[in-house]
Parts: sequence; structure tokens; C-alpha cells
Amino acid sequence: MQQKNIPDIVVGRLPLYLRSLQRMSQEGRQVTSSQELGEKLGISAAQIRKDLSQFGEFGKQGTGYNIEYLVENLQHILHVDRTWDVAVVGAGDIGSAIARYQGFANRGFFVSMIFDNDPVRIGTKVGPFIVQDSRNMAEAIRASGIKVAMIAVPASTAQEVADELVKGGIQAVLNYAPISLNVPPEVQVQYIDPAIHLQRMTYYLG
Amino acid sequence: MQQKNIPDIVVGRLPLYLRSLQRMSQEGRQVTSSQELGEKLGISAAQIRKDLSQFGEFGKQGTGYNIEYLVENLQHILHVDRTWDVAVVGAGDIGSAIARYQGFANRGFFVSMIFDNDPVRIGTKVGPFIVQDSRNMAEAIRASGIKVAMIAVPASTAQEVADELVKGGIQAVLNYAPISLNVPPEVQVQYIDPAIHLQRMTYYLG
Repeated sequence: MQQKNIPDIVVGRLPLYLRSLQRMSQEGRQVTSSQELGEKLGISAAQIRKDLSQFGEFGKQGTGYNIEYLVENLQHILHVDRTWDVAVVGAGDIGSAIARYQGFANRGFFVSMIFDNDPVRIGTKVGPFIVQDSRNMAEAIRASGIKVAMIAVPASTAQEVADELVKGGIQAVLNYAPISLNVPPEVQVQYIDPAIHLQRMTYYLG
Repeated sequence: MQQKNIPDIVVGRLPLYLRSLQRMSQEGRQVTSSQELGEKLGISAAQIRKDLSQFGEFGKQGTGYNIEYLVENLQHILHVDRTWDVAVVGAGDIGSAIARYQGFANRGFFVSMIFDNDPVRIGTKVGPFIVQDSRNMAEAIRASGIKVAMIAVPASTAQEVADELVKGGIQAVLNYAPISLNVPPEVQVQYIDPAIHLQRMTYYLG
């Protein structure tokens, strides 16, 4: 199913398609169209058809897409037809909110470990998890086989944490610390920084 | 200073440049180059020079960029040489973490109001703020003149909240709910959804 050389910008749109389709499915819908998806997402119908056509033949001219079939295929393409265990580093406000967040369940992810370096936090509970000492993080992650992690520590220690995660065999990092990370090219990094998004909008405000 | 018709993708990179430059400035640095910035951000030096040249002449061939001067100019271009008050809607885990987050201070934003519709939360304190009843949100926001808001409510109520925010005069929305919003074209929306970022990475994992 997976094709080589799909542009990353196309890959980046697939999760948006999947999210909208899963929502329609939850609402009991069975069929949709590239027009409807496009209106919901602010993406042209032609773009959506072109993106999906790179992975297969999912709809018929005039009859639209079968939502369940497309959901299953997109989950397969994005490798979320399985559940990825996730390690969270940082048990402050953001890390704790992530660890308690219920919304990953049907989207392919399950937070299964949380680490911190603060003796006051180590051993306490965050949701159903005991906060573990981040000194043992690389070993614990390697032993567990976890490949996906989220960093929710201050900017000043985020690079150090990333280095440890890479040592532990992590292959994908979602970084909430407001700093760019240096990782080996085979490790994926994505960033969440609300101020970046806000500034991108205030550019357009008077 | 502000030019018309700058592509949105260029605008989207400016906050990343600003963040890196502010960090260098905090470290006591005075001069940088497009090469150094590019290495930190994983963006080519040529791209950075081209992006910045659309807004003015900020560096000299061979001597690089004066960090403080470029920070001031980027802050001006992005309209964060002022502080924007921000309303947060939703006083759950995510909304509370945002309201308590200290990292907006030097980046142009100040959370100044938090709303919820849950009687158990209304009137309680989140950081320094009293949670206000979201029934009065549109009026309270209009009275305050706030233009920027963050939505941290469940997907099922996010559109309703967005409609109220627009009624209150909000012009920029950062949406943490995992759903696409319909807003008038003059209102900016940006999204934060960790599962979207995670799925974009698992595509590349085996």
C-alpha cells in the first residue's frame, strides 16, 4: 500500500482527512465526497482527490467515498491500525495534561510511561501512571520497545532529554518545548508551540 | 514595513526565526548568520535570506545579522512588539495548563481570561484567574476588546464556542479541540492536535 516519494506535505494532510472521516463515522455517516471533506477542511476537492489517488482507488466518480473503507485504509497508510505506546517526559502542567488526555485512544496512541527529573514528582501519580525517574529513561524505554515520545520539559533541558530518548531507541518525538532539537536524520520530530501559531495569526491582525 | 502578498508559508517561518533569535539573545549573543539559523532550524540558509529579504535589508554580506535588530524587526512585522490579551475557553487539563503557562510573556501574549460552562469550575481559580461563566463570554470579550482566543473544550462543543468567540469580536483562534472549525474568512484559525503530529510521524515508521 505505502508508496515511496510521497511529498511530506501530502503526508501531513492525511491525518486531517482521517480525523474528519472518523468524526463522520462516529456520527453514523457512511458515504462522503471530496467536496464535503474539502469544505470541512478548507482544502480544495481536487487536492483531496489528488492526494488520495497517490495511495489507491478509494472512490468512484459520482458515488463518493465509503467512509469506513477510507478510514481503514488511511489508518493502515499512517500505521495507526495498531496502537503505539508513548513515553511522556516532563510531569508538569503540560506533561500531566497529555498523560491524562483521553483523546489518543482511537487515534493510534496510548501514553504508557511518564518521566521527570524532579524528586518531588518522581513516584507520584499522574492519571494512572507513576512518574518515573528520568535518569533511568533511556534504559526503561529501550527495554519497553517504545518508539514514540513527547517532550514536555523546559526549553533549557529539552535537547538533553532528546539525546536520551534517541539513546533509548525513540524514532518519533513530539516536542512541546519551545526550542528546535538536533536529532539524527532517521528520527522524526514535530513541534507544538502555541506562541508560534499565535504569532502566525497576529501577523494578519492590525 | 509590512508588505502585501507575502506567501503564508513564509509568514509561518518568521515565528521560528524569531524564537531562535530570542533564544540566542538570551544567551548573550549579538550576531548570527543565515547559515547558523538554518542549521538550528533545518531550513536552508538561502531560504532564510530570501524570506527575510521580503521585509527589508537586515544583514550585510559577510557580517551576518545583528540579533537584537532582527528580533525587533520580526516582532514589529508579526505585531508582537505589543502584548495581546488572550481569552482561554475551557478550564480542564489543557486549558488550565495554558492559563498557567509562563512562556507567553516575552512572546507577545498574556492570558487574561478563562471561561468554562461547568458550574463546578466556574468561580474557581486557575493560576491567578477566576474561571468565568462561558454563558457571558461574547459580551465579556467584546467589553474587554480581546481579539485572540484559545479553545480547549471537547470537540463536541468547539464549534459552538467558536461561534460565540466570533460574536465577541475575536479575530484569531488557536483551537486545541480535535475538529476543524467553520469561521468567517476574516477570522484566523490555527490548530494544535498532538495526534495529527504523531500520525504524520508514524507514517514514516515501519
